[in-house]
Amino acid sequence: MFRLIAKEGRARRGEFTTAHGVVQTPVFMNVGTQAAIKGALSSEDLERIGCQIELSNTYHLHLRPGDMLIRAQGGLHKFMSWDRPILTDSGGFQIFSLAGLRKISEEGVTFSSHIDGRRIFMSPEDCMRIQANLGSDIAMAFDECVEIPSPRDYVEKSCDRTYRWLVRCRDEMRRQMEQPDAVNRGELLFGINQGAVFPELRIRHMRQIAELDLPGYAIGGLAVGETVGEMYDIIETVEEHMPADKPRYLMGVGTPANILEGVARGVDFFDCVMPARNGRHGHLYTWSGVINMNNEKHAGDSRPIDETCACPVCQRYSRAYLRHLFKAEEMLALRLAVMHNLYFYNALMQKIRDALDCGEFHAFRARHAEILSNRI
Amino acid sequence: MFRLIAKEGRARRGEFTTAHGVVQTPVFMNVGTQAAIKGALSSEDLERIGCQIELSNTYHLHLRPGDMLIRAQGGLHKFMSWDRPILTDSGGFQIFSLAGLRKISEEGVTFSSHIDGRRIFMSPEDCMRIQANLGSDIAMAFDECVEIPSPRDYVEKSCDRTYRWLVRCRDEMRRQMEQPDAVNRGELLFGINQGAVFPELRIRHMRQIAELDLPGYAIGGLAVGETVGEMYDIIETVEEHMPADKPRYLMGVGTPANILEGVARGVDFFDCVMPARNGRHGHLYTWSGVINMNNEKHAGDSRPIDETCACPVCQRYSRAYLRHLFKAEEMLALRLAVMHNLYFYNALMQKIRDALDCGEFHAFRARHAEILSNRI
Repeated sequence: MFRLIAKEGRARRGEFTTAHGVVQTPVFMNVGTQAAIKGALSSEDLERIGCQIELSNTYHLHLRPGDMLIRAQGGLHKFMSWDRPILTDSGGFQIFSLAGLRKISEEGVTFSSHIDGRRIFMSPEDCMRIQANLGSDIAMAFDECVEIPSPRDYVEKSCDRTYRWLVRCRDEMRRQMEQPDAVNRGELLFGINQGAVFPELRIRHMRQIAELDLPGYAIGGLAVGETVGEMYDIIETVEEHMPADKPRYLMGVGTPANILEGVARGVDFFDCVMPARNGRHGHLYTWSGVINMNNEKHAGDSRPIDETCACPVCQRYSRAYLRHLFKAEEMLALRLAVMHNLYFYNALMQKIRDALDCGEFHAFRARHAEILSNRI
Repeated sequence: MFRLIAKEGRARRGEFTTAHGVVQTPVFMNVGTQAAIKGALSSEDLERIGCQIELSNTYHLHLRPGDMLIRAQGGLHKFMSWDRPILTDSGGFQIFSLAGLRKISEEGVTFSSHIDGRRIFMSPEDCMRIQANLGSDIAMAFDECVEIPSPRDYVEKSCDRTYRWLVRCRDEMRRQMEQPDAVNRGELLFGINQGAVFPELRIRHMRQIAELDLPGYAIGGLAVGETVGEMYDIIETVEEHMPADKPRYLMGVGTPANILEGVARGVDFFDCVMPARNGRHGHLYTWSGVINMNNEKHAGDSRPIDETCACPVCQRYSRAYLRHLFKAEEMLALRLAVMHNLYFYNALMQKIRDALDCGEFHAFRARHAEILSNRI
């Protein structure tokens, strides 16, 4: 399912085939947690900004509107009118960051819904059944996302349990895929590596889960409080032990510079709420750095956000207009800003892939890493 | 500039030519008060939903971002990237409904900005200069919009002053149009009839302003507290005294049923914030009546909002998805709902025009007036 097209150092150019089409990697997944992109972007907008694969959340959709409802509507693709690939995050991270009153046992996790406080139990099997009901193309394993910092003892025990959960996930997903009325019989399970910032735990866990020969592997539990340096170190440590013929997904990361560094360290899939969130705050990406639309200096500027950008926003609207929309608190401000930022992320990945295709990724990274972090 | 194509009773089918193209009437103007449509609709969306003419507000744009800024950006059309006709409301209504601490004199009105409390003076000449800076295709006269109820004495004096202001508006707009650097040299002035609910004042004022031979006339000061019956009566009373060869605009009206009744009474232009506002509250128009998206019964409904509707929302999304978006408080809910409702209004006007073209308007009105008001 994963085909490696080119390599440059550890950076990889690949193709991942799913039941809803081929994903060109490295790829950024556009985040639609509740089956909708923030900033009022529709599925149609996603197509226009070059999104290859959308990411929704198992925890959120299980709570609302309910995975059985989505199943009855023909699955998530049909529900949100998106016929390209979808990855569903397992909700492990959300249960440990968003839900209240968690109680974790070998069997699973009991927690309170962040919406209405209702007590809910979720086992690895439940999580797989929910994702099978959603019918995503890639289902993420049910894991415990431990806080950083956490005591080594706790992390070790947690990793062992997450491994046992992964075996249960694999078995249940197999069972789900054999059901004649499965929503998406091509649904693929990705395992998630944990281990906080302890290299030996990360490695041991990665070796264990690699043996299960799953269609892909993620590095989870990062971007949750460690330094950027620690994050890069862990990617390097884990990457050596990840199967070379499977895609690697760095969960919840990150800035354009983080993505360049992730690609350089052998990562293929990324996702992050940052471009949409920054957009809503008026922070817009350009190929010269980040600009703040709330800044007075844009008030009379008839140029687009970025003169070199081909996105639907830059093709049509000026900085002056965008700044007006932000000051006037028009919802359109958020939509145009998010649309531009997501286009920018998708365009960044396209440029990374193009560079890899030409063997010029390292030059591209050297040229852009610093510029993209500028605040101008 | 106005060409009458067909008549059926008092209902009129016409064409109004502006500097940015021809408007087919009867027409509903889509409201973008602050140079943006509510619900995150872009100018591109407006084109897709069949909007012929956009309406922005002089008061709002003068306060923010400022008409001089918009002038420097090449005018409102360029600023908001909309090259079809634009009508700008004069701000008279807003000054009397939104701004604080009003002081009215023969010279003009002093008021406090609703944004920052700043004291501002606006004369009829100022209002024309501002609209000339915006470069709209139709500028509305600066008038006093009197409350209903108001004492007859006050209304009479106010009408006299509004008439004197209209003469000043006409003279100033002429002067503005002669400036070599005018943003839009084809800007047209519409007069506004006032007189609250006093038929003889309405008639007297209408006759006075008709003598000025302006490109169009509006009925203002309605939908501000009188009954629907009173409103229809006043339209009938005034309409007889409006020049037959000029377009008539009923300001701020209304429901689909109000529009049908307005057309039947000889009105050509309408505008209203209602379809966008109702959309944001989940109240959606269908050809069988209004549905409430918050209603539980839509939760599992895979049908579009209206199976007969060709709008971009009904072509792609289900009631089940829309209801989920409303419950999950996703901004996309508001956008899709507003898009559908505005499309519906534009489609309603198209059907009205088609019916007039075939001499079947009265049958159309009889068939739809009641249905469209249903809550189903």
